[in-house]
Amino acid sequence: MKGVLSRWESLCASSRVLRFVDINLRGIGQVMFQDHPLSGLLFFIAIGWGSWAGGVPQVAIGGLVAVVAGTLTAQWLRVDAAGLNAGLYGFNAYLTGIALPTFMASTPQLWVYVVLGGALSVVVMLALVNVFKTWGVSVLTAPFVLITWLLLLGTNAFAGLEGSALPPAGVIVPIDPAAADPLRPVDFLQGLLTSISQVFLKGHGPAALLLLAGLAVSSLPAAVFALVGAVVGLITAHALGAESQLISAGLLGFNPVLTAIALGAVFYRPSFRVVVYTLLATVLSVIVQGAMITAMTPFGIPTLTASFVLVTWLFLLPALKFE
Amino acid sequence: MKGVLSRWESLCASSRVLRFVDINLRGIGQVMFQDHPLSGLLFFIAIGWGSWAGGVPQVAIGGLVAVVAGTLTAQWLRVDAAGLNAGLYGFNAYLTGIALPTFMASTPQLWVYVVLGGALSVVVMLALVNVFKTWGVSVLTAPFVLITWLLLLGTNAFAGLEGSALPPAGVIVPIDPAAADPLRPVDFLQGLLTSISQVFLKGHGPAALLLLAGLAVSSLPAAVFALVGAVVGLITAHALGAESQLISAGLLGFNPVLTAIALGAVFYRPSFRVVVYTLLATVLSVIVQGAMITAMTPFGIPTLTASFVLVTWLFLLPALKFE
Amino acid sequence: MKGVLSRWESLCASSRVLRFVDINLRGIGQVMFQDHPLSGLLFFIAIGWGSWAGGVPQVAIGGLVAVVAGTLTAQWLRVDAAGLNAGLYGFNAYLTGIALPTFMASTPQLWVYVVLGGALSVVVMLALVNVFKTWGVSVLTAPFVLITWLLLLGTNAFAGLEGSALPPAGVIVPIDPAAADPLRPVDFLQGLLTSISQVFLKGHGPAALLLLAGLAVSSLPAAVFALVGAVVGLITAHALGAESQLISAGLLGFNPVLTAIALGAVFYRPSFRVVVYTLLATVLSVIVQGAMITAMTPFGIPTLTASFVLVTWLFLLPALKFE
Repeated sequence: MKGVLSRWESLCASSRVLRFVDINLRGIGQVMFQDHPLSGLLFFIAIGWGSWAGGVPQVAIGGLVAVVAGTLTAQWLRVDAAGLNAGLYGFNAYLTGIALPTFMASTPQLWVYVVLGGALSVVVMLALVNVFKTWGVSVLTAPFVLITWLLLLGTNAFAGLEGSALPPAGVIVPIDPAAADPLRPVDFLQGLLTSISQVFLKGHGPAALLLLAGLAVSSLPAAVFALVGAVVGLITAHALGAESQLISAGLLGFNPVLTAIALGAVFYRPSFRVVVYTLLATVLSVIVQGAMITAMTPFGIPTLTASFVLVTWLFLLPALKFE
Repeated sequence: MKGVLSRWESLCASSRVLRFVDINLRGIGQVMFQDHPLSGLLFFIAIGWGSWAGGVPQVAIGGLVAVVAGTLTAQWLRVDAAGLNAGLYGFNAYLTGIALPTFMASTPQLWVYVVLGGALSVVVMLALVNVFKTWGVSVLTAPFVLITWLLLLGTNAFAGLEGSALPPAGVIVPIDPAAADPLRPVDFLQGLLTSISQVFLKGHGPAALLLLAGLAVSSLPAAVFALVGAVVGLITAHALGAESQLISAGLLGFNPVLTAIALGAVFYRPSFRVVVYTLLATVLSVIVQGAMITAMTPFGIPTLTASFVLVTWLFLLPALKFE
Repeated sequence: MKGVLSRWESLCASSRVLRFVDINLRGIGQVMFQDHPLSGLLFFIAIGWGSWAGGVPQVAIGGLVAVVAGTLTAQWLRVDAAGLNAGLYGFNAYLTGIALPTFMASTPQLWVYVVLGGALSVVVMLALVNVFKTWGVSVLTAPFVLITWLLLLGTNAFAGLEGSALPPAGVIVPIDPAAADPLRPVDFLQGLLTSISQVFLKGHGPAALLLLAGLAVSSLPAAVFALVGAVVGLITAHALGAESQLISAGLLGFNPVLTAIALGAVFYRPSFRVVVYTLLATVLSVIVQGAMITAMTPFGIPTLTASFVLVTWLFLLPALKFE
């Protein structure tokens, strides 16, 4: 693997086209914190497969268009080369590009929106990076959440922009206990996989396996913590009495997956205390996801990865030394 | 012009009363970033005319009362002399003072509120300036937005404070496409002017012309970018299918106007790349204004200049060097 | 008093158990800014009495469980000893621990939530302290507000967590003027006491007297400013036409009480100008409490001490020198 990678690196060094491809692949890989072109490629294939199988190829295409728009914008704005080459200006654009076609009707205006979203995610990334460097904390997917929320909220005001699959805005109603019926083992397994694929807004088992493979080629701990996050997320959600359909669809699990990877395998060096700390944050991610679903009800927009971002910030900002 | 101004300056230097007048005029001028007493005077006349014509003289009087209350508060708090003399503690007070009588019934309590709002806007200005100096970014009209939102939200809890012209709180409903009917040229022209006058919460053509004159006496680029912001705002809003009545009333255009002035003529030195960057932000201001109208629907309060503030922050915080 | 305190200090220095007790008592005392074990003890007895009298002993027990959970978490995270010993990692935990049983049904899951809330309040405290030290400002009870809001919002998504006494989520309706009927002197007196006890979410006269005693043993100015805050809060609320039941229940007064103590007796040295500044903030706390009740209506959660936190931040952030 290392030989192939270093050969790819030297190819990229000599070709502007390959370098551009490499930056975009790493951008996709960074959705799950992987600065690795093969991770990005596997993630890209996973989302392509999931989109195709779900009859929404525009989702995969939207991601591609937006990540390219983002990279071009970053180059035009002359961002730092190290960050650019590591894909740091791509992951928010890619997520924005798959989110917009997921929640909006496929009109010509959608594609203006996708390009705009990819470009804007870079500006917002630069803005938030400047703010959060004050405390030495990563901005995570906050630019994606912020820009996508604004663009989706905006659809209510413009007839040319149709939010076809947005959750209906309305008054908050607490869960009906009957909706929290016991999970069968097969639902549990399905929830395990969809919790991972929903990081990319897809409920698709094979895609989840490809995503795990994409993690493993770059970082085995990341793949392990993704699984741990999914399992802890499922158990917590079910134990607290969450809606079974939400659990098996992975909609309460993708935030815990990201939190577990971030705290367990990226920002802290694993140790017993770090694992306990990560588990606490992972459990909280489930509850905060429930809170965010509630809080977004009056606005009629999806929660995206807001709960992961908020909880991970709260657990990174203390700047604890665990050694 | 320069001779008159320097003579006025020397008069102010020798008279505390004239200096006080000068500070308040510059405070009004700073609503559109102009540290110039004549700009302030023309803006003041424009709003007086617009208020009188609209049968709401209390709006112009409210602005005057609040800006004076703000200046007195700033002097009592012994703020920095340079900022005070440049009008930096006046523009949020003035905007708060015209907003409260615009949205509330004219009762004796309203005037307590106006004085309180003018005074508080200075405290909030000092607070936010201290926060945002961390990143070298201006607070813009955020103090006005924050304090006016709080004061207007509060009207729901107190029988003595009546929010007579607030948008009704309710559940978000996406736009009816029929409301986005084609604009006639006369509507377009009207929208162009009202987009400028709505910066001061007025939909009044002659006031807009006076405001443009007030900009031009101090900064020709500012006047040009105000027009550019209005035109880009109109075209974007109409192309995306916004409600025609909102467009012609200028309610989707005043935020783009402010964004265009701020980025194009105040905080960056104009160049080709700056113009492109400014246009991107201007377009985003329209969409975010649509998003803010949606997001404020459950709360029943107006969006004020929140979309200008948010978008301009996002485009200033990257701290890009365009040279 | 000083002799008893120094003897208690030397006892704590030689016993880990007594030190642990001391830390938790000071943690309770810090709810009203008092780094004093006797204040904490009196506050603890007050809340115990109020809870017992109200038929909700689980509230007092919840506070105890959470503050212990918080202290243990702080020790496990190896926070700074000075802050720990001063009770700075206890007050948010204690408040979270009394808030959750106040608004939720008494189920086994509630107790998981209380322990979790106590532990998480420490993490959030560390996170916000790191953020706000940038501007040299205290985080106040923001960790309590944030974590309790998230945990209470989350109850809507989980059948095992029942929000029994939460305000119903719904559309904002302005106050009916008839609800603002004149207060009788006895209502005024009741409101005075409940405004103080509602700092700990209790409407109980004798508890308020114990709380005042707890303040006085540590800081007479704090007790005086608590009373001033309550009186100013009552007068402002009634003069503006607030709902009489809210006033006599102390629900518009506890935020002004905290604001008055914080600005008048803790963070600034008293002087004429400081008193005027504090009164301005105290009046604003009443209006912002009305605003927060409105703003939380779509979400169906209580305002807690959000208005105190917001207003006190706005009045501390200017970093004014009053000498």
